[in-house]
Amino acid sequence: MFDYKLLAALAAVIEQAGFERAAQVLGLSQSAVSQRIKLLEARVGQPVLMRVTPPAPTEIGRRLLNHVQQVRLLERDLQGQVPALDEGGLPERLRVALNADSLATWWAKAVGEFCAERQVLLDLVVEDQDVGLKRMRAGEVAACVCAGAQPVAGARCVALGAMRYRALASPAFVARHFVGGVDAASLARAPAIVFGPDDQLQHRFLAAQGGGPSFIYHLCPSSEGFVRLTSGGLGWGLVPELQVQGELSRGELVELLPGRVIDVPLYWHHWRTGGELLAQLTGHVTGRAGQWLVPLTSG
Amino acid sequence: MFDYKLLAALAAVIEQAGFERAAQVLGLSQSAVSQRIKLLEARVGQPVLMRVTPPAPTEIGRRLLNHVQQVRLLERDLQGQVPALDEGGLPERLRVALNADSLATWWAKAVGEFCAERQVLLDLVVEDQDVGLKRMRAGEVAACVCAGAQPVAGARCVALGAMRYRALASPAFVARHFVGGVDAASLARAPAIVFGPDDQLQHRFLAAQGGGPSFIYHLCPSSEGFVRLTSGGLGWGLVPELQVQGELSRGELVELLPGRVIDVPLYWHHWRTGGELLAQLTGHVTGRAGQWLVPLTSG
Repeated sequence: MFDYKLLAALAAVIEQAGFERAAQVLGLSQSAVSQRIKLLEARVGQPVLMRVTPPAPTEIGRRLLNHVQQVRLLERDLQGQVPALDEGGLPERLRVALNADSLATWWAKAVGEFCAERQVLLDLVVEDQDVGLKRMRAGEVAACVCAGAQPVAGARCVALGAMRYRALASPAFVARHFVGGVDAASLARAPAIVFGPDDQLQHRFLAAQGGGPSFIYHLCPSSEGFVRLTSGGLGWGLVPELQVQGELSRGELVELLPGRVIDVPLYWHHWRTGGELLAQLTGHVTGRAGQWLVPLTSG
Repeated sequence: MFDYKLLAALAAVIEQAGFERAAQVLGLSQSAVSQRIKLLEARVGQPVLMRVTPPAPTEIGRRLLNHVQQVRLLERDLQGQVPALDEGGLPERLRVALNADSLATWWAKAVGEFCAERQVLLDLVVEDQDVGLKRMRAGEVAACVCAGAQPVAGARCVALGAMRYRALASPAFVARHFVGGVDAASLARAPAIVFGPDDQLQHRFLAAQGGGPSFIYHLCPSSEGFVRLTSGGLGWGLVPELQVQGELSRGELVELLPGRVIDVPLYWHHWRTGGELLAQLTGHVTGRAGQWLVPLTSG
């Protein structure tokens, strides 16, 4: 069998984002951790870590991490059956990637009870909806919520529903930029807000009104910051309606083109061999997401 | 003088997080962008980019980017005096790093008016409060809001005030974990929420109650997600009081140890040679931040 002391050192360095914290968590000296990584690299015959800040796994390192996480989940199942194996009964950690807007809206409501009852700790990784799957593929997370429907090798994919986005701005912003109406030309001239390079929602909204790919925008890689910039009158942007029910009802945000929504489908991806806990979380999330997401339109 | 076509290609590849989008923005073919980067590397005699996804600047690449951004800000000043130089009057972009909690609370209110009136677009970069300065040092941002008081070379630093954090949890969480009172032992046993490896607030709060460095926690790298997990009963954590006035007044969150606050000082760092626009933004931010932040205690 593999030497799991070495693999645990690798996992700690990545999870703790450094050798110093990994050493603290493992109760080892930093040089002992270093030694274990070097030994692991000697065994596999190539580097497992890139020595950058924070350290990043190489391709082979990712495969090893993937394996460590799967083994941990399987160990948890076994501990349920053979309680004596349990070293101190620490709660299990589940690493999940999800899009920022899910984390800012429905996620905690969907999983809160489950985590409290099963003593699960979450390591959440925020990724824009189209890139969470990269984390699954790299074996860095056991599950992910994202917009992609195609499962990666070794994983299953379940549809959750769609997040509904509306194009919103503050009343002052509308008065300043859209006196003559909201159309492709006025939208392209008024600053938009874009979450990051992977956020194409504003582009899609403009295209749906006949606009081109060129417009001016602020970049704001934070869900709550996005809403704050929108209410603060800095720009217009596509915001999950779930996130701004208060702002909409108080009139702090208004819809630019009422009813012209964009629905972004969301899928739950999870490892097939992730053990009982992950299977239960899957049942929990897929059973509850419909309370906050709108049904997926077919086709 | 430098060949700014080459430097603009480098800036576009970094800002657009890839060659394809850089080519779109520059109106060039992808191979033309590639060619310009290669030519730049031939001139400086070493790589300016690491070919990873997304591309990252090398040390020398960072210095070049820093220079490009400073030149752009100076160009803007010049355009104010020599309007004919202005190529189409596109709004200027300012790249600013700030901590997620500032972006989730006071930032938009403090800068909204300024950006709208001066036609400034923001490229916001979210960094935990202790690491924003790294971005300044690397020349990737023109200004930053962070907890560090020591200016980097070429920059000035102004105190803004302090963000006040309170240790909060949902009433259900308190009932489950703190029936016997809130102390170091009960805090360490109840799951905390930690923003990321650089977030030491929960550690500091525990230490102030006489606790050790070991406790169980969820990891949640999102300000709004942090609040959602807290209200959802997943854990306790230090939350900016600015962010949860509604939750506190409605009783959805309660304070674990009333009055035991942690004040995190915030500073505004900005390039000394950043031009008139950055100087004006500095005046604007430093003049207004006191509306939301508490005064810094001396010493």
